[in-house]
Amino acid sequence: MAENLQDKAHELAKALRESDEFQALQALHEEVEEDDVASRMLSNFRKVQLDLQDKQMQGEQPTEEEISQAQKQFEMVQQHDVISRLMEEEQRMSTVIGDMNKIITEPLESLYGTPEDEQNQ
Amino acid sequence: MAENLQDKAHELAKALRESDEFQALQALHEEVEEDDVASRMLSNFRKVQLDLQDKQMQGEQPTEEEISQAQKQFEMVQQHDVISRLMEEEQRMSTVIGDMNKIITEPLESLYGTPEDEQNQ
Ligand SMILES: [Ca+2]
Ligand SMILES: [Ca+2]
Repeated sequence: MAENLQDKAHELAKALRESDEFQALQALHEEVEEDDVASRMLSNFRKVQLDLQDKQMQGEQPTEEEISQAQKQFEMVQQHDVISRLMEEEQRMSTVIGDMNKIITEPLESLYGTPEDEQNQ
Repeated sequence: MAENLQDKAHELAKALRESDEFQALQALHEEVEEDDVASRMLSNFRKVQLDLQDKQMQGEQPTEEEISQAQKQFEMVQQHDVISRLMEEEQRMSTVIGDMNKIITEPLESLYGTPEDEQNQ
């Protein structure tokens, strides 16, 4: 990769690291890590989510038991103050990353067209 | 998104647009567009690839006929000078984008760990 591209990518990574969104996310991660109950609750929740995803990717249907398990855990983490703030902040970060990617891949879209362009053809 | 982040993303997009890899890709796209045979050959090839992908995503098995069709078209485009160069350049661009993404998402990896870290736990 050209040096200029690499420099610009590092500058963007630095700006991301210094952004309010990243700083808030990092602070919440630390808060969760320091709280044994929250930290166990979150890692259980993530494990159940990942297991469900794995099943779906392998074309398997999750059982009703597994779905209600996942829902119960989702409600639990939603009610937990720090974890629910962490998940909101993750949503915000995911929007930032999406917006960033739209800007960065604009040159390629000018070559290949956006999905919307395809539909309008 | 913070203004600084937005500026840095635009600077990176500009660097990408000015990179040798992008310039070469753009030139090859123009070459293909000006060549009716090449342009028809490429869009047929892309259509067959997309149809195959659609089938696989819906969990359908493509027929032997469809697979041999796709293979024949792949060999055809491989033998076409401009299209084969275009596809090589697309490979190169895809590596650039992958390397860029690795740099940009480094801050997030420091929070969530890389897939390799997970496996080593
Ligand atoms: Ca905070
Ligand atoms: Ca060229």
